[in-house]
Amino acid sequence: MMFKTHTAREVNESLEGKDIFLAGWVHTLRDLGGKKFIVLRDGTGIVQLVVEKGDQAFHSAQELTQESVVRVKGTVKVDKRAPRGIEVKVSELSILSKAKAPLPLDVSDKVSADIDTRLRERVLDLRRLEMQAVMKIQSAAVKAFRQKLYARGFLEVFTPKIIASATEGGAALFPVIYFGREAFLAQSPQLYKELLAGSVERVFEVAPAWRAEESDTPYHLSEFVSMDVEAAFFDYNDVMELLEDLIKGMLDGVGSECSECLKQLNYELPKFEFPIPRITYRESIEILRKEGEDVKFGDDLSTPYLRVLNKALRKDLYFITDWPSSARPFYTKARSDDPTVSESFDLIYKSLEIVSGSTRNSSREVLEEALKQRGLNPQSFEFFLRWFDYGMPPHAGFGMGLSRVMLMLTGLSSVKDVVAFPRDKKRLTP
Amino acid sequence: MMFKTHTAREVNESLEGKDIFLAGWVHTLRDLGGKKFIVLRDGTGIVQLVVEKGDQAFHSAQELTQESVVRVKGTVKVDKRAPRGIEVKVSELSILSKAKAPLPLDVSDKVSADIDTRLRERVLDLRRLEMQAVMKIQSAAVKAFRQKLYARGFLEVFTPKIIASATEGGAALFPVIYFGREAFLAQSPQLYKELLAGSVERVFEVAPAWRAEESDTPYHLSEFVSMDVEAAFFDYNDVMELLEDLIKGMLDGVGSECSECLKQLNYELPKFEFPIPRITYRESIEILRKEGEDVKFGDDLSTPYLRVLNKALRKDLYFITDWPSSARPFYTKARSDDPTVSESFDLIYKSLEIVSGSTRNSSREVLEEALKQRGLNPQSFEFFLRWFDYGMPPHAGFGMGLSRVMLMLTGLSSVKDVVAFPRDKKRLTP
Repeated sequence: MMFKTHTAREVNESLEGKDIFLAGWVHTLRDLGGKKFIVLRDGTGIVQLVVEKGDQAFHSAQELTQESVVRVKGTVKVDKRAPRGIEVKVSELSILSKAKAPLPLDVSDKVSADIDTRLRERVLDLRRLEMQAVMKIQSAAVKAFRQKLYARGFLEVFTPKIIASATEGGAALFPVIYFGREAFLAQSPQLYKELLAGSVERVFEVAPAWRAEESDTPYHLSEFVSMDVEAAFFDYNDVMELLEDLIKGMLDGVGSECSECLKQLNYELPKFEFPIPRITYRESIEILRKEGEDVKFGDDLSTPYLRVLNKALRKDLYFITDWPSSARPFYTKARSDDPTVSESFDLIYKSLEIVSGSTRNSSREVLEEALKQRGLNPQSFEFFLRWFDYGMPPHAGFGMGLSRVMLMLTGLSSVKDVVAFPRDKKRLTP
Repeated sequence: MMFKTHTAREVNESLEGKDIFLAGWVHTLRDLGGKKFIVLRDGTGIVQLVVEKGDQAFHSAQELTQESVVRVKGTVKVDKRAPRGIEVKVSELSILSKAKAPLPLDVSDKVSADIDTRLRERVLDLRRLEMQAVMKIQSAAVKAFRQKLYARGFLEVFTPKIIASATEGGAALFPVIYFGREAFLAQSPQLYKELLAGSVERVFEVAPAWRAEESDTPYHLSEFVSMDVEAAFFDYNDVMELLEDLIKGMLDGVGSECSECLKQLNYELPKFEFPIPRITYRESIEILRKEGEDVKFGDDLSTPYLRVLNKALRKDLYFITDWPSSARPFYTKARSDDPTVSESFDLIYKSLEIVSGSTRNSSREVLEEALKQRGLNPQSFEFFLRWFDYGMPPHAGFGMGLSRVMLMLTGLSSVKDVVAFPRDKKRLTP
């Protein structure tokens, strides 16, 4: 059946006097005795409905509760007093689903709730205009990311998520019982995307990945969407240039498609410097020492250090390049002019790493040596290493955390906010 | 560094006389004594290189093996005898990665291999021009699918893949050890996409899903990419119409972007009837009985039956609608005029179900009753049911198996062929 002729957003002055059908949720409800004002919400936005005493619809409207789902027929009327200057005078109203009252969470944002309540009542929370805006921005961001990559000849690929062994070594994996055998959930498509770059040259993937994160921080979840790129005949400089184009594309895409959503969030997209400023890891250490931090070559640049760096640099988006080789995974290529550092980078938004990338090792001997140096057994990586015997091109790539990029695109401060149904140590539902 | 100025595909007559850099794999190698012909392959296609005795490059070329990775500088020359009527006379050649000989699989397709060998040597197998074509068609198909949905106001969403309990009941799930607790891999985003349709109205997702398939068939894998759509204020007829548009979009997208790839596969895209013919399940049973099959209302339409139906109907793409209510999952809505059948459909390509969809139940009471009828305990589904108290709109949707659709778009006959690294009971690597 045809539930509606128009969406809430489509109701505008050009429809004045027309009879239309709408369907959606009762966002708010105001009773003025002889008149009821209903703000109707659907996936596109909100529009005001008016039900007047004496109309048949008035009787049905008596029963209405917030978040009930209704279908209405009505006439479009321009009215400057209404939100958006337009309202719909309802002649017919049917309740498709009546919501219990009181609601466990206020969807119309008159009462704010803490994050634990919001995550518990997430299906209602996602109906809030703010969260709808977040979801739209996310969809637009991923769309823009892919469009730029298609235009540059990248193929979207799908790598396996159940893997036989711990790929990168070290990080905590989730075990899966696979037909009676032990297997694991992929913590990243790293090795598979490298192999695919060795087959079809330029690939990307947007897919879930898992890390058994013990800690409860605003930047970690145990399940996350990883946006991965890998390209043969690229080095880390090529990848950084590509990434600049992708970041620009995502900002432009969100900026043009989601201006209403950004207003809803009361957020303005940041204006970054392009090309994105680059400093080396060594330079970062020097700056930090000048700022009085007790940090030396080889140390990890944890969030507190990045905060100091962000302030000292006065840049909100910057690359830190040439990380110590020992601090990066075995597949990272060392610089030939100074093997203590690697052809690697992190892209930092304020004090948060949002992308990590590098030129990869493309020689079996170098990979074996790098594994040994990290206390890993090359034999356990034979499923990966053997392909390097059959023509593996130089290649480079990166992994980008979607929910972290979303913090940049929404101004929100926790990845739990931007992920529809986040998973962490204590959350497996809803 | 800049590895190349042009891709193999970009080398054409307009570049005649120009010096260019190329990089890629040695697809084939022919030695005519004073001349070597190399067919160079990259992610875009192939181009012929010529190395002549006396040139410095000739010396390096002596060492070459098939699938070695090279970078060359050369001059573009029109030559009718060359493949594509063009070749590159090489002046400089460097070997970036030398491949061992012999290869465990012939990438240039002179010797064909069985599927087990191909899957074992998959990284080489994916370099075959045929498999590159398959990967490109897949990327184009998913792109077209998304574009149609964006245009209709659908949001891309990401639902959780680790879930606390068996969602649909029945099918075999993979257990995950989640911080010491038992959890499962989602067999479909079904319940989450319904909840999201109840929050933001129109959603889609392209993501992995898992079923512990014991059987080894050409149509099942234990890990697969599911293309899911769910929309509030849609019923199954609306969904079928949307699906027609998506199938058209995917055929058009692949047809226009991948004509070379289709040629490579020696495949012509099927020309289907639109709107896609619809027959009811009851009509299917009647046709099958007329064809002499011993089948009755309530029976599953397994592949042998669908083969007979395909032949009798003389249609390669058709909807079977109104399946018995008892044969569909608990969330499927029964027809109000005849509750023994449901508002459901399967889209069949020849004898293969490629999409399954329905109008969903949107009332808690009906859902609880449907669970009980199936021997399931409504209390175990409370995480899902409770949201139906707070305004759940009528909604409908479908799930489409990407690898099955790919059989329609490539003419291949097994999903193991089209998935880069398939997972089944015996395969966890590569």
